[in-house]
Amino acid sequence: MSLFTFFNRKGSAPAARERLQILLAHERVHIGGQSDLVTILREEILAVVAKHVTIDPEKVSVTMERGDNVSTLEVDIEIPLHAEKKVEKKAA
Amino acid sequence: MSLFTFFNRKGSAPAARERLQILLAHERVHIGGQSDLVTILREEILAVVAKHVTIDPEKVSVTMERGDNVSTLEVDIEIPLHAEKKVEKKAA
Repeated sequence: MSLFTFFNRKGSAPAARERLQILLAHERVHIGGQSDLVTILREEILAVVAKHVTIDPEKVSVTMERGDNVSTLEVDIEIPLHAEKKVEKKAA
Repeated sequence: MSLFTFFNRKGSAPAARERLQILLAHERVHIGGQSDLVTILREEILAVVAKHVTIDPEKVSVTMERGDNVSTLEVDIEIPLHAEKKVEKKAA
């Protein structure tokens, strides 16, 4: 099942609220490789999102896991409906 | 199946090369919805990654899909092994 199908839940009821989900996975060759790219990218990616959408810190869930070969970051952001306006003004 | 399990393929052979996968999904309330957050975030997220890892444009695959309620962005980056060094020097 490709990741995309997980998101594209055709036929399910339209969302009651806007949501942005971000998943990052870093697959390393060496077990426990030194740098942790996911940790390094986390703050900067959240900063990029915050530039375009008003984010309520209480509506952001961040889950990080570090396995032998794979580190993952899951960010789930509930977006207040009016937050999008900020984006449109820029795009117009 | 949570997205995380898709990445954390326990027991599978260690990766032959380093890989970074990014998945972004924007679930909208209104069908069609004006702005396309995923398109807006795409370039900036790639720029954040490029700051920390040497990226070979030929080893980056970007897939974007826009459904009625959900837009998704999938980025798959093959990372050359020495690229990580750039990250370590900064961290030391």
